Amino acid sequence: MSGDISPLAPKRYPELPAIDGVRIETAAAGIKYKGRTDLMLMVFDQPAAVAGVFTTSKCPSAPVDFCRGNLGGGRARALVVNSGNANAFTGQKGRVATTMTAEAAAKAVGCTEAEVFLASTGVIGEPLDATKFAGVLDGMAQSASGARWLDAARAIMTTDTYPKVATRTAKIDGVTVTLNGIAKGAGMIAPDMATMLSFIVTDADIEPEALQTMLGHYVGSTFNAVTVDSDTSTSDTLLVFATGAASGSGAGRIAGADDPRAEGFAKALSDMMEDLAVQIVRDGEGARKQVEIIVESAVSDGSAGRIARSIANSPLVKTAIAGEDANWGRVVMAVGKAGEPADRDRLAIWFGDVRVAVDGERDPGYSEASASEVMKRDEILIRVELGIGSGSARVFTCDLTKAYVEINGDYRS
Amino acid sequence: MSGDISPLAPKRYPELPAIDGVRIETAAAGIKYKGRTDLMLMVFDQPAAVAGVFTTSKCPSAPVDFCRGNLGGGRARALVVNSGNANAFTGQKGRVATTMTAEAAAKAVGCTEAEVFLASTGVIGEPLDATKFAGVLDGMAQSASGARWLDAARAIMTTDTYPKVATRTAKIDGVTVTLNGIAKGAGMIAPDMATMLSFIVTDADIEPEALQTMLGHYVGSTFNAVTVDSDTSTSDTLLVFATGAASGSGAGRIAGADDPRAEGFAKALSDMMEDLAVQIVRDGEGARKQVEIIVESAVSDGSAGRIARSIANSPLVKTAIAGEDANWGRVVMAVGKAGEPADRDRLAIWFGDVRVAVDGERDPGYSEASASEVMKRDEILIRVELGIGSGSARVFTCDLTKAYVEINGDYRS
Repeated sequence: MSGDISPLAPKRYPELPAIDGVRIETAAAGIKYKGRTDLMLMVFDQPAAVAGVFTTSKCPSAPVDFCRGNLGGGRARALVVNSGNANAFTGQKGRVATTMTAEAAAKAVGCTEAEVFLASTGVIGEPLDATKFAGVLDGMAQSASGARWLDAARAIMTTDTYPKVATRTAKIDGVTVTLNGIAKGAGMIAPDMATMLSFIVTDADIEPEALQTMLGHYVGSTFNAVTVDSDTSTSDTLLVFATGAASGSGAGRIAGADDPRAEGFAKALSDMMEDLAVQIVRDGEGARKQVEIIVESAVSDGSAGRIARSIANSPLVKTAIAGEDANWGRVVMAVGKAGEPADRDRLAIWFGDVRVAVDGERDPGYSEASASEVMKRDEILIRVELGIGSGSARVFTCDLTKAYVEINGDYRS
Repeated sequence: MSGDISPLAPKRYPELPAIDGVRIETAAAGIKYKGRTDLMLMVFDQPAAVAGVFTTSKCPSAPVDFCRGNLGGGRARALVVNSGNANAFTGQKGRVATTMTAEAAAKAVGCTEAEVFLASTGVIGEPLDATKFAGVLDGMAQSASGARWLDAARAIMTTDTYPKVATRTAKIDGVTVTLNGIAKGAGMIAPDMATMLSFIVTDADIEPEALQTMLGHYVGSTFNAVTVDSDTSTSDTLLVFATGAASGSGAGRIAGADDPRAEGFAKALSDMMEDLAVQIVRDGEGARKQVEIIVESAVSDGSAGRIARSIANSPLVKTAIAGEDANWGRVVMAVGKAGEPADRDRLAIWFGDVRVAVDGERDPGYSEASASEVMKRDEILIRVELGIGSGSARVFTCDLTKAYVEINGDYRS
């Protein structure tokens, strides 16, 4: 595995302010590697509202099962995340590890185990030795502080080449509230959802049901609209926490997602989710190019989405992009294989602003030179018009390079 | 694109005998490259029964449309196949090219255009200049002869590194009949069907409906059970021709697929289809290993098939195999992402004869050394037992290597 940072990494990271009501600490617990920061604790000194979305995998990890069980309570006091081991497909040992971690976190923070949330990312199938956490969580809960967001983002990385952070503000009742988010993910990334962890915290005061509804509204067009390799993790977890601390400054409680006072907040949340999701794609294993696929005039949004994913997940499309080849024939192939309604003779395809195909054949005005120029960029838009309806969808992906094969052909060693 | 022959190529090719009733010729028509054999003509001097299966793509090539139109007639006098250009997504020009080719073939052979079948493979979206065929088909029809099967298999190759041929015999009414088959395909290969052309000819005397029924029975477990890269071509075509010449020696006509006299023939046909399908996988672009995926005790055969394809198409599973890494965690991931019924805690997984996981966790008796030994082989079996029903399925695939990316990142140039 090369230690190179993705060429699509941000040139600089935004400064994430402390958020009232949450403290953060990281540690090197020695889960897989010695001396590497691999453990992150968030402490909510007052119970925070929590909402979440998880992998659709039929073989979810033990921490996903654990979080699902606690989500109904709607309140969080601690979040414990480790990298290096996914605690997935670890059977009874996996459940023992989540129980032990939750007990240690509850004791360290002074809450019940039902207020603890967990996530793990890394190798599947290796038992996770949770005794490594038990010894360090007490001290972490003591020393946790507000402005540790970039450290937190680094602690949850696996094959990621850069930490993923984002921050936004919004007004509720005229008072500024803040949202901070971190994410990780680089491979085993596909819609519904990705090998992806993301944790967002706000000081806004929002009821869990309202937060959950907002997540449901926005996850489809953000985290579920990215794919690196079509592979879906056992461990995908997106959690949003609202500490409510801003209510002390006059940003009153939001009880429902349709409350007009929450409009700005919802917009900021959606925008941040897209930002973090696209950061994941830009760090796709071996990625050299970010690719945006837009499918328009399909019979429905759902159909457009399935066609967009078929294009985004096609190895032949992705290798052509890696080779800077405007091979729109492979886009036609991927439209055709999606199994969705399409009329070959009405298809039009653009690479960037160059229309390469129209009415089911090569655009007579198409210039190979201008298409080649588009393909040299590091952000490439592929747009497909089906011409048969009004459904549309957008999906983000990256190219498929030799480096992806290299990284994944030698991951466990 | 490297000129290396797949390490999984056959050590030697079987000798394919002439089959009464069919003559073959090949030529270099200059479709894409100068001096490369790229055109193949089969002539049936008497009308042969014909049956076929085609791509499920919603954007099929012009030749696929053309063949579908003629299949209802059930009789063939000529088959024209070119490599170098798929005549796909070529709009009105594509239809002009198929019409012109069929006219030239009909004239050369002395039949109607309804008795001509066509297939094209190669680049998508480039207009095919059919005038290049018109000049050579007359001479090809004259000089065509019986024992040209290996030449025929070579003429239809694109990124294939070796020609794919197979031969079988069977008895009908105590008389020996012969089946010869050729195939091509190396990338854009996925179930339902692959970028795959295959043509099978027998001297048995079989009605078109009976042939079609047999094809339908066997295509699911053979050609539709192979996948190289999950990409489905616009051009997939499997045609079977029965010249009926053996009826002169006493092998009487088969009118229905359930005729017990056809049992041996059906077995030989199915066996040959599997042979050709596996040859395609073994020539998968960049492939170094043949992989057989068996899924057992699923809720149904269909469910087992979807899980097997999810494993076979997973880039993470395929890169792990390329890296000779017995990474069964990725197999769990692929089972989970299939969306089919599965109980994580009842899963068992084998690599070769080594059980690596059982009851939802690592097999306590699992030895990394013995699994590593299995992964070094060039034929690898991955078997998954779900333990929840009696459905099963088998799929063939290959590993995903850097060479795949290399070949497909620079195909058009």
